[in-house]
Amino acid sequence: MAVNLSAPEQLLAVPGVRIGTACAGIKQTLRDDVAVFELAEGSETGGVFTQSHFSAAPVLLARQRQHRVRAWVVNSGNANAATGEYGVVDAEEVCAHAGRQLQLPADEIQPFSTGVIGERLPVGKLKTALDTASAQLSEDGWLAAAQAIMTTDTCAKGISRQIDIDGHEVTVTGIAKGSGMIKPNMATMLAYLACDAGVAGGLAQKLVSTAVEKSFNRVTVDGDTSTNDSFVLACTGKSSLPRIVSENEPAYQALSEAINEVATYLAQALVRDGEGATKFVTVHVKGGRSSSDCLNVAYTVAESPLVKTAMFAGDANWGRFCMAIGRSPVEDLLPERVQLWLDDVQVAKDGLMAQSYSESLGAAVLAQDEFVVTIDLGLGEAQETVWTTDLSYEYVRINAEYRT
Amino acid sequence: MAVNLSAPEQLLAVPGVRIGTACAGIKQTLRDDVAVFELAEGSETGGVFTQSHFSAAPVLLARQRQHRVRAWVVNSGNANAATGEYGVVDAEEVCAHAGRQLQLPADEIQPFSTGVIGERLPVGKLKTALDTASAQLSEDGWLAAAQAIMTTDTCAKGISRQIDIDGHEVTVTGIAKGSGMIKPNMATMLAYLACDAGVAGGLAQKLVSTAVEKSFNRVTVDGDTSTNDSFVLACTGKSSLPRIVSENEPAYQALSEAINEVATYLAQALVRDGEGATKFVTVHVKGGRSSSDCLNVAYTVAESPLVKTAMFAGDANWGRFCMAIGRSPVEDLLPERVQLWLDDVQVAKDGLMAQSYSESLGAAVLAQDEFVVTIDLGLGEAQETVWTTDLSYEYVRINAEYRT
Repeated sequence: MAVNLSAPEQLLAVPGVRIGTACAGIKQTLRDDVAVFELAEGSETGGVFTQSHFSAAPVLLARQRQHRVRAWVVNSGNANAATGEYGVVDAEEVCAHAGRQLQLPADEIQPFSTGVIGERLPVGKLKTALDTASAQLSEDGWLAAAQAIMTTDTCAKGISRQIDIDGHEVTVTGIAKGSGMIKPNMATMLAYLACDAGVAGGLAQKLVSTAVEKSFNRVTVDGDTSTNDSFVLACTGKSSLPRIVSENEPAYQALSEAINEVATYLAQALVRDGEGATKFVTVHVKGGRSSSDCLNVAYTVAESPLVKTAMFAGDANWGRFCMAIGRSPVEDLLPERVQLWLDDVQVAKDGLMAQSYSESLGAAVLAQDEFVVTIDLGLGEAQETVWTTDLSYEYVRINAEYRT
Repeated sequence: MAVNLSAPEQLLAVPGVRIGTACAGIKQTLRDDVAVFELAEGSETGGVFTQSHFSAAPVLLARQRQHRVRAWVVNSGNANAATGEYGVVDAEEVCAHAGRQLQLPADEIQPFSTGVIGERLPVGKLKTALDTASAQLSEDGWLAAAQAIMTTDTCAKGISRQIDIDGHEVTVTGIAKGSGMIKPNMATMLAYLACDAGVAGGLAQKLVSTAVEKSFNRVTVDGDTSTNDSFVLACTGKSSLPRIVSENEPAYQALSEAINEVATYLAQALVRDGEGATKFVTVHVKGGRSSSDCLNVAYTVAESPLVKTAMFAGDANWGRFCMAIGRSPVEDLLPERVQLWLDDVQVAKDGLMAQSYSESLGAAVLAQDEFVVTIDLGLGEAQETVWTTDLSYEYVRINAEYRT
């Protein structure tokens, strides 16, 4: 069960984006597993993709096609990863077919896949489903798309924000999928964001790069990352707001903030739906010499199996935190300067268990389904935050039984 | 349950080492939790210690005292870690007390502790137990010591080797403890090795440094490392073999090999007794451009929670291996050159699932309690091997319930 997360009741249409979904029956036949996004002519887009050496075929194609994008085609159930040249040919064929349906050149279509790795894409089934999906394009398709892209997700993830910029209404809507393999440099994670603001060439890429850095690149469930991660943004220019031409405009800042908010909500939603998660944990590291030092400590703590099982058990064990902080890849960490809090309860002071601390105080914090671990390194001014989960029996069960 | 591991039936005495054990009742009162090793005058010793920023007080002292060592004092149940200055004072007091009993200067005694972190050492209890242990020193105490140093270990770990060097019999005996937090740069791991060969100053350190590199630094259970890891070696010089003065002597090579064998057995024993382990897995990476590239891939695979849960489930999932190899921190890995075998079954050829492969072939390999994962990167001549376990429900249970 996801931690304090439920599917969105509604998602706002973004003028300039039409969506269709259908069931190709790739891995199941109970719900749609294909989504098509058609982006209005003149849309500016940007994207960031997995850094895996085994980037999946759709990722290879999507990366090539970033110059001009008029549609996104997504399937769940099969990742088309570790499929070599065949995989690229299959993804190209899917795009070509979608292009005929949408009357667009194939190389203006970005493909995305998520699901089982190492098996060939069922291209025939996909084409049939694309016929159906393309015939039903509608601006109201966001919620259906959020459902169609799910794999082990226990609930659909999406959110909309409407902001006023200089008297013009701008809508930002985003959806995402992912629940395992969530980790910096992304995860088995797909995210699609769109807004109806118009931006000059290059600015959509800047918006998405900024957003990912403080959202999807700050979450971790198990330290594993996937072959297919992709996060894309389209700015359709259909709102009445004048086109944004520079990142120095106040309008750019306002838009960027709204996009960051949507991305952060979605990234946290992935963690809340982390495989087997029973807790949503914020790890805040401050007092570091640099952001990278803070991140190294935060990730070492957030990904330590011993810390994660202690959090699952509600065991406020200073020893485990101390072990994880101690093995962080940071130069010249000074134990005697380290402070640790669980919410407002100080656990460690100057590297030792705080005299005011008692296990019952710590246990009360960990009994909650959300809490903040704050670590002060006492060395500088930098700080960083990452979000993670505990490690439960359920994580093992889900991942041991994934394909059975 | 440990994977194909049982406690040693006997361990050979090493002339020049006398051992006593006792129960201090630190965390339990059912078995001994203190061991004292007295090393004959003229013994040469060496040691390697945890690299944690939070090195425990006994580690700080043991590191300082490497010049001349006449005794090792060990307790289980309390790690004396994250205890600051108090911890150092406590460890010094324990050594001073042992020194009075053994008629040795306190600074020739190395202390070691393992167990709960962040709580002060019960010095009074320890002193009483040291009185008992010191009064019962015997060359036959190795097996009792192997039991006294255990924490979450399910069985005592030890082994002896007797070799003939130039017509002289040399005995090597080693014991170790550890089962969780097993990982390169060591683990909650204590290991004590001794031999009756005599070596010149500096050579004992060289022997232990060589041995650790191919044994304890090649095992991983959960990627976590401890504050207290220590691996020490004593060469007593009580055998009839002439003192070894150079590492170029054949006698040095013979001795080094025997020590490496003992260390490798002990390191593998820690993995076999890994928390919740149901499989003993050898990960062999070859064809790398460098050893460090091979190790990076081997550890990424060996520590991937998704690979580990798949191995627990007996699910021969190429996708999970491919995901883990793909995210390894290695430059310019070429997917199309990657080969993967499970024992003799080729799973992936040139980055794709092998045509000869079927899931039933892979599942048959993973159904065994021991198997080898071989990865060929196809880029060079380097190779490395690490040993690890699967990730089971039991791992979560043990670590969630550790202190309750």
